[in-house]
Amino acid sequence: MLASSLLSRSVLAVGRRASSTAANMSFDLPDEMKDLQQAMRVFVKNEIVPTAAQYDKTMEYPWEIIKKAHAAGLINSQIPEEYGGPGLDTVAEVVLGEALGYGCTGIGTACMGNDLATAPLLIAASHEIKKKFLPRLIEEPLMSAYCVTEPGAGSDVAGIRTRAEKKGDEYIINGSKMWITNGGVANWYFLLARTDPDPKAPAGKAFTAFALDADSPGITKGRKEINMGQRCSDTRGITFEDVRVPASQVVGAPGEGFKVAMKTFDKTRPLVAASAVGLIGRCLDEATKYSLERKTFGVPIIHHQAIQFILADIATNLELSRVLTYKAAREV
Amino acid sequence: MLASSLLSRSVLAVGRRASSTAANMSFDLPDEMKDLQQAMRVFVKNEIVPTAAQYDKTMEYPWEIIKKAHAAGLINSQIPEEYGGPGLDTVAEVVLGEALGYGCTGIGTACMGNDLATAPLLIAASHEIKKKFLPRLIEEPLMSAYCVTEPGAGSDVAGIRTRAEKKGDEYIINGSKMWITNGGVANWYFLLARTDPDPKAPAGKAFTAFALDADSPGITKGRKEINMGQRCSDTRGITFEDVRVPASQVVGAPGEGFKVAMKTFDKTRPLVAASAVGLIGRCLDEATKYSLERKTFGVPIIHHQAIQFILADIATNLELSRVLTYKAAREV
Amino acid sequence: MLASSLLSRSVLAVGRRASSTAANMSFDLPDEMKDLQQAMRVFVKNEIVPTAAQYDKTMEYPWEIIKKAHAAGLINSQIPEEYGGPGLDTVAEVVLGEALGYGCTGIGTACMGNDLATAPLLIAASHEIKKKFLPRLIEEPLMSAYCVTEPGAGSDVAGIRTRAEKKGDEYIINGSKMWITNGGVANWYFLLARTDPDPKAPAGKAFTAFALDADSPGITKGRKEINMGQRCSDTRGITFEDVRVPASQVVGAPGEGFKVAMKTFDKTRPLVAASAVGLIGRCLDEATKYSLERKTFGVPIIHHQAIQFILADIATNLELSRVLTYKAAREV
Amino acid sequence: MLASSLLSRSVLAVGRRASSTAANMSFDLPDEMKDLQQAMRVFVKNEIVPTAAQYDKTMEYPWEIIKKAHAAGLINSQIPEEYGGPGLDTVAEVVLGEALGYGCTGIGTACMGNDLATAPLLIAASHEIKKKFLPRLIEEPLMSAYCVTEPGAGSDVAGIRTRAEKKGDEYIINGSKMWITNGGVANWYFLLARTDPDPKAPAGKAFTAFALDADSPGITKGRKEINMGQRCSDTRGITFEDVRVPASQVVGAPGEGFKVAMKTFDKTRPLVAASAVGLIGRCLDEATKYSLERKTFGVPIIHHQAIQFILADIATNLELSRVLTYKAAREV
Ligand SMILES: Cc1cc2nc3c(=O)[nH]c(=O)nc-3n(C[C@H](O)[C@H](O)[C@H](O)COP(=O)(O)OP(=O)(O)OC[C@H]3O[C@@H](n4cnc5c(N)ncnc54)[C@H](O)[C@@H]3O)c2cc1C
Ligand SMILES: Cc1cc2nc3c(=O)[nH]c(=O)nc-3n(C[C@H](O)[C@H](O)[C@H](O)COP(=O)(O)OP(=O)(O)OC[C@H]3O[C@@H](n4cnc5c(N)ncnc54)[C@H](O)[C@@H]3O)c2cc1C
Ligand SMILES: Cc1cc2nc3c(=O)[nH]c(=O)nc-3n(C[C@H](O)[C@H](O)[C@H](O)COP(=O)(O)OP(=O)(O)OC[C@H]3O[C@@H](n4cnc5c(N)ncnc54)[C@H](O)[C@@H]3O)c2cc1C
Ligand SMILES: Cc1cc2nc3c(=O)[nH]c(=O)nc-3n(C[C@H](O)[C@H](O)[C@H](O)COP(=O)(O)OP(=O)(O)OC[C@H]3O[C@@H](n4cnc5c(N)ncnc54)[C@H](O)[C@@H]3O)c2cc1C
Repeated sequence: MLASSLLSRSVLAVGRRASSTAANMSFDLPDEMKDLQQAMRVFVKNEIVPTAAQYDKTMEYPWEIIKKAHAAGLINSQIPEEYGGPGLDTVAEVVLGEALGYGCTGIGTACMGNDLATAPLLIAASHEIKKKFLPRLIEEPLMSAYCVTEPGAGSDVAGIRTRAEKKGDEYIINGSKMWITNGGVANWYFLLARTDPDPKAPAGKAFTAFALDADSPGITKGRKEINMGQRCSDTRGITFEDVRVPASQVVGAPGEGFKVAMKTFDKTRPLVAASAVGLIGRCLDEATKYSLERKTFGVPIIHHQAIQFILADIATNLELSRVLTYKAAREV
Repeated sequence: MLASSLLSRSVLAVGRRASSTAANMSFDLPDEMKDLQQAMRVFVKNEIVPTAAQYDKTMEYPWEIIKKAHAAGLINSQIPEEYGGPGLDTVAEVVLGEALGYGCTGIGTACMGNDLATAPLLIAASHEIKKKFLPRLIEEPLMSAYCVTEPGAGSDVAGIRTRAEKKGDEYIINGSKMWITNGGVANWYFLLARTDPDPKAPAGKAFTAFALDADSPGITKGRKEINMGQRCSDTRGITFEDVRVPASQVVGAPGEGFKVAMKTFDKTRPLVAASAVGLIGRCLDEATKYSLERKTFGVPIIHHQAIQFILADIATNLELSRVLTYKAAREV
Repeated sequence: MLASSLLSRSVLAVGRRASSTAANMSFDLPDEMKDLQQAMRVFVKNEIVPTAAQYDKTMEYPWEIIKKAHAAGLINSQIPEEYGGPGLDTVAEVVLGEALGYGCTGIGTACMGNDLATAPLLIAASHEIKKKFLPRLIEEPLMSAYCVTEPGAGSDVAGIRTRAEKKGDEYIINGSKMWITNGGVANWYFLLARTDPDPKAPAGKAFTAFALDADSPGITKGRKEINMGQRCSDTRGITFEDVRVPASQVVGAPGEGFKVAMKTFDKTRPLVAASAVGLIGRCLDEATKYSLERKTFGVPIIHHQAIQFILADIATNLELSRVLTYKAAREV
Repeated sequence: MLASSLLSRSVLAVGRRASSTAANMSFDLPDEMKDLQQAMRVFVKNEIVPTAAQYDKTMEYPWEIIKKAHAAGLINSQIPEEYGGPGLDTVAEVVLGEALGYGCTGIGTACMGNDLATAPLLIAASHEIKKKFLPRLIEEPLMSAYCVTEPGAGSDVAGIRTRAEKKGDEYIINGSKMWITNGGVANWYFLLARTDPDPKAPAGKAFTAFALDADSPGITKGRKEINMGQRCSDTRGITFEDVRVPASQVVGAPGEGFKVAMKTFDKTRPLVAASAVGLIGRCLDEATKYSLERKTFGVPIIHHQAIQFILADIATNLELSRVLTYKAAREV
């Protein structure tokens, strides 16, 4: 009975405020973001859709598009005004990422590689580090890269073996990174390395994160990987041999690199999802277009119910993935 | 280039308003609805969860629970204050429906049957009809039913054959309805019937909707169907033989019944989805609980990765269905 | 080159014997089994299909059908001629099981419960045990049950706790079995119990198998479980309290019961699969029949391509499951 | 009762012949085919597996492998002894096709393209035509192609528009074919064309099939398509402009070409399935190998149950597809 009377009070409370409460929930993008989305769609349609297949075939890095994207301000979009950027939030970034994924997930990955590299700096770096590495990305179309994965450790980040040894005011880095987006074209790297050699040291204390220039002596770039469907994106292994990094370039506290990497993943996963959502959207559009054009048995195949059901399934899953991606972006 | 400069303006616009725009999007329930949700969960936990299995076994109509639910105001929750109800919006109704579905989709369907029957009145009926049929549902725990489906027509609503013939100030109804929730216990019915006998008449003009008392002479209730998993819900066929309904009880304009029915479906589908969402939530909770208790090969089965992956899949799909259901409720 | 010339010899060898080799492969049932299949289908159509729903509703044990099935010789069909049975092989048993599953998997499980119980005797028991327990099943419609699963151990057979202690010429059994088909109606039981109390004893040495009469003092039958879709099958827990079994009723060597149970599973799994295959076949037939009768939007729903694709998917999967089931039966 | 006594007679009949009947069913390959399978696996392992990636990258037609395969007699394997071939049946061909698919479906398609082209000749052509076109394929490593699909008609074979007009003792062919395997390298073509211009003519009478030399004047080969995963296979469009074919090269009766094409599909589909089965087998082997090598979280990933379940699902589906493919091959 208590439950009931509490409940009836709640029912009345909601009833009284029905109109106001409805207004408080919104699954729609705010107006400025709709404008941004619209502008992005035009950009992607004009600049990326027509050139993507050629970049995919040649595997050439999409510098021309990168430059235009940079000029338009859509690369490095999370960098705050203080460091020269527009300071977009994750939802806005997802708007950009979805549109890029619609155009080409290879070009999109290249563009968004910078967000991966700058995210840990925004999360944990000192003002000096940010000052040193962020503004240049805004000033010029320079790329950066996030170096965590290794030949022997991907899902299991705590399994990385690249080590950083402190010598005086510097750290000496040795090891190999793998599958690094923008690895061959980056101007600077974010890097995670093991600083505590004791294998029993807890992950939360054993690693340290760094920002370092890509032309530091001792860095060798491996050959470009051939990614299926993302052939123009630059993915490489990178080897570090006695690379010196000043201690002032430690991102976050020494020993806390694992946490920095994990927080970065939390923050950047919606962006990866956004790219996939964009791609599904593209699939649906292309499939629908073809279904309207292609005829079999005397009618466009969209008249065959089995084709309609496939399209409806894609549309449903697109809607599901999109809503959840934006929800995640809103929450991180 | 035009595209780029438009885009860069948009990027800046969003950047400038990042904090405000973020605030405008919300996937969360407003506070009062959270209270309502919480109160409903307590009600369901105390009143429905412990009794559901017994009702399912006996197939007895859950009058005891209906009465408590009615007292608490959670039946007929969309009826506006003007007619004595709390006037909840669809989102709030979905909150109720999800909680009921968590408890028992049979009991939930029984409770929510009234929403199906009252929805078309709220959408299209005159003040007189609403005045006649709605307040009594609030005053007493009376049930109502939505009579559209027939033995020969379900998905294809325009295929129904029950006909209503105008004779003076009355319509004479003849035909059979099928699968009517609350069919055997309802105090009044919403009914869709064909008024234009011409088979070529467009659906938008051929049907008329009515509200009528369940004890009108000529109405015969069929036997209770046995629904899998919803055995206590009262689902029946109903036969109408020369049943007289005053013309004043036409819901919406004569001939426009099909539109009324379609609008009702639009409005009430999120509620049906909510019940399913609640049920998935219950499955996840029960499965998780069992996985923590049940041991095989020396450990609780939740330690087996294959079990974890099943639970994770359910959790993902639950989240997807829930978000989309609330989004739909927000939009109808 | 060596590989090539070997290959070319093989190609020629096959070519020369093409007609003979083709004849050696056959996915078809031999003629006698086709006759058996046909006779079973008639039996199932006449005796089981018309009564199954009623048994499922009432949960009454299907004695009438069991008697007819027994008279026709299709229960206990693997018992060899030596012990009075027809001595069918596993393929023939699968023919029976598929037809029973088509009729009703509840009735089928009841009938086939005997095969589960007799299989370990055929695999491992002495002539005396077989002589004692098998002929009576042929003489009268008596049931038997296979008691392995326990409340705390299903998939993990080695986790069972029922124990058998040797005292002189007898074993004393204590423990509980669960989910035992024919548990309440069986005339005798096959039972697996732990004989080595040392938890580190290897499974292959720690358990012993028995055959024992169901009316042995100390046996208590639990309440009938309610199985979804198999409500007339008798599934129960059984408790053993100081039940005495003569050592001469050990099936296989003492300590080797786990192996006996595992070999029994190998031998009887095709039968379980056959029941499922029969059920899918029934689903397809019922679904097809309904699709031909039920009309929506002016045509039988089988004219809607989405319905056709569902039926085609079921048909494909039925064919796949059936072929693999018979292949397994042929190989065990 | 009648049913029961019939049944009991059947049970006894099967029982009496159990041992013989078991012997009559066999899901296993006969011994010579097992030798062939083994020899093929060695050939594929030595010749195809090591070179496939390179051919896929360069898109070069695999002439070197074709020559070895031809020398070993595994191309054109269905051609009967009368015309110089080994005369394998479809089951043996499926053995070859599965092994080739395991090695590379691109190379496999190239090799098996000849079987598609020769099949309709074996089904319907006169002795003269066979004599003219078949022996040369055995004598030298020449390719042939099956030209049915068109830019505007694939699934809907009856929709093809290439037309053949009879002029005296010749037919004049005009039209375009598309997606023709070995289109650019073939020595001769099988071709389907419309001979009855009346759009209402039934498919069974409107088309005629031909065999013709690839260097016939008026034939133009289009550019090579880039097939995903089968890049070295030669797939092209082919245009026919006033190409003259002697009436003696009609395959089957004039007007009956549609039936010839349909029978060819029936006969050759198991081969296409075999290639897919081989590919799944390869996937399973490669995935298993990687799962044993790759470590995450300190163990080879095959120790993670979720990976095991994926492998088990592939293995199950491989077994299902394989058995059904051989069953189909046995039956066509
Ligand atoms: C195109 C591309 C771009 C990339 N860019 C970058 C980049 O810029 N910077 C960077 O640092 N990295 C980058 N990566 C690497 C990426 O982060 C890793 O591929 C990813 O973390 C997975 O690691 P892995 O490939 O080593 O797979 P592994 O971790 O070796 O996993 C192998 C398989 O085992 C499964 N598995 C692993 N552990 C378990 C477990 N415990 N239980 C069950 N299954 C398990 C995985 O799901 C996977 O299927 C990139 C990768 C790609 C493909
Ligand atoms: C528990 C329960 C309670 C109910 N309560 C009510 C109620 O209160 N009031 C009421 O009016 N109705 C009620 N219904 C009926 C419900 O609305 C109908 O069951 C539903 O509309 C489907 O109709 P049907 O069952 O006649 O199926 P049909 O319309 O006959 O469809 C049969 C099958 O064919 C498929 N199908 C149909 N048309 C097509 C097509 N064009 N292409 C492809 N596939 C197609 C369907 O998806 C379905 O699988 C209830 C039903 C149930 C089960
Ligand atoms: C109708 C019916 C009739 C039966 N008749 C008989 C009978 O006649 N005689 C008899 O002895 N038994 C009988 N059984 C019992 C049956 O053999 C067991 O149900 C079965 O072995 C599964 O055991 P369980 O139910 O204890 O499930 P559990 O073993 O407790 O398993 C629970 C869940 O965990 C999963 N799981 C278990 N171990 C792992 C693992 N290592 N990794 C990943 N997942 C895992 C299972 O797949 C399952 O989903 C019957 C059961 C039924 C339903
Ligand atoms: C690598 C490769 C090699 C080939 N080699 C040859 C060759 O040697 N000789 C040759 O003649 N052809 C060849 N083909 C062509 C092949 O036979 C056709 O691709 C195939 O018949 C399908 O035709 P399509 O591509 O025109 O698809 P379409 O027929 O246009 O179909 C498009 C889509 O619509 C669907 N669809 C079509 N009709 C219906 C319907 N009624 N209802 C529902 N869905 C429908 C299809 O499933 C498909 O998804 C080759 C193709 C490939 C890819």
